[in-house]
Amino acid sequence: MSAAPCIVLIEPQLGENIGAAARAMANFGLSDLRLVRPRDGWPSERARANAAGADRVIDAARLFETAAEAVSDLNFVVATSARARGMNKPVATPEIAGREMRARIADGHTCGVLFGPERSGLENDDIAIADWIVRVPVAPSFVSLNLAQAVLLVGYEWLKSAGGSADSADPARGGGRRAERRSAAASRGDVLALFEHLETELDLAGFLKPPEKRPAMQRNLRNMILRMNPTDQDVRTWRGIVTALTQHARRGEERS
Amino acid sequence: MSAAPCIVLIEPQLGENIGAAARAMANFGLSDLRLVRPRDGWPSERARANAAGADRVIDAARLFETAAEAVSDLNFVVATSARARGMNKPVATPEIAGREMRARIADGHTCGVLFGPERSGLENDDIAIADWIVRVPVAPSFVSLNLAQAVLLVGYEWLKSAGGSADSADPARGGGRRAERRSAAASRGDVLALFEHLETELDLAGFLKPPEKRPAMQRNLRNMILRMNPTDQDVRTWRGIVTALTQHARRGEERS
Repeated sequence: MSAAPCIVLIEPQLGENIGAAARAMANFGLSDLRLVRPRDGWPSERARANAAGADRVIDAARLFETAAEAVSDLNFVVATSARARGMNKPVATPEIAGREMRARIADGHTCGVLFGPERSGLENDDIAIADWIVRVPVAPSFVSLNLAQAVLLVGYEWLKSAGGSADSADPARGGGRRAERRSAAASRGDVLALFEHLETELDLAGFLKPPEKRPAMQRNLRNMILRMNPTDQDVRTWRGIVTALTQHARRGEERS
Repeated sequence: MSAAPCIVLIEPQLGENIGAAARAMANFGLSDLRLVRPRDGWPSERARANAAGADRVIDAARLFETAAEAVSDLNFVVATSARARGMNKPVATPEIAGREMRARIADGHTCGVLFGPERSGLENDDIAIADWIVRVPVAPSFVSLNLAQAVLLVGYEWLKSAGGSADSADPARGGGRRAERRSAAASRGDVLALFEHLETELDLAGFLKPPEKRPAMQRNLRNMILRMNPTDQDVRTWRGIVTALTQHARRGEERS
């Protein structure tokens, strides 16, 4: 039983593409590569060279004579295909397929994804042994995806399916992780002190005029700063900036 | 104004990779390719050969001397990076970034995605001009994604975001923010001009010292301002503030 789907390449033509597919698998935590009649034989130095370090996947790859043998131990199989095939099978996106396989594997089942030869894609007979067809959404004007790219997208959606809700990582909704743990959020008192400091200096500089517009200008200014979601350190920085920009003014006035 | 995000490759090394990136763009309906100092020059026959028919993208690619120039007409910029950078910027998945760009473009804004050189990724200074960092979720044991793969995943999520956009259309979530942004997001060129104005004045005031700390201080400053998500009017306001706070200084110096 495998903790992740296996990738089954049917009659892959170029060792380069097998290597690139292995690399894409490693990127997303897949390790079980199965090859059915690779055209240029196996093992393949070109595959290894193009695996860019994913040697573990290359070393563990297994050869099969037929697609049926390659999938014989699996419980759930999806077949990637760019075209509608009139096969009367469910057609899913990689995202949906990733989630489905995640759920089935959690139930103790084994899953695999079939990919056809680079030029022609899967034969109908190979698609027939799959439960679902997976089709990658592409622009209608330019549909050709290469083999490793297709493996990449399936692997990507597999790894994504492990995550929590997408929304919790959405910075636009206040979620998301910061590249660095932010220093403590500023207290509202410190932020208000920054407002007063800045506004006092702007009054001295004659900026917040005319008087009837001052309240709106002040609100706008405060909103801009609050939108930064300022930390303690941010507030200190802005206080420093205001002081630096005005200190020449102070010195000039004292001299005059 | 573009109906899809542009792809900005900073110092791409190999023409092959530029071509593969162009192909990935075409797969997902992206057409605006911008190149900043491609190492091996431009045009590139290797790029064309590897574009696998995406000639339209190659033909329309534009060259820029700096990242700042390449993004100057954009309203929203995301930077792809594999590593946490201590940049205090929101970090999003390609999926969330795709939805966000979809929503912003629907509002009439322009968006772009930055990719760094194959070997090293984006420099901190290039990340600093972006609003968000986008990180592709990969297996911790094997994180290297090549350039075209990263472009592919961003393009894939962009195209996918055209589908179930119920979330991004939900006015209960971030509706106010979007209503506000409709008042015209600042072009990145105007924001960069504000940075230069502020930093020039801070240099004159002796604030950005000592020299070894200047780059970090500058990035921090830029990040704070970008976090405001500034509109056109916000940028004008901050230019006005900097001018107001420093005009005393000017007058004082003239008098002394």
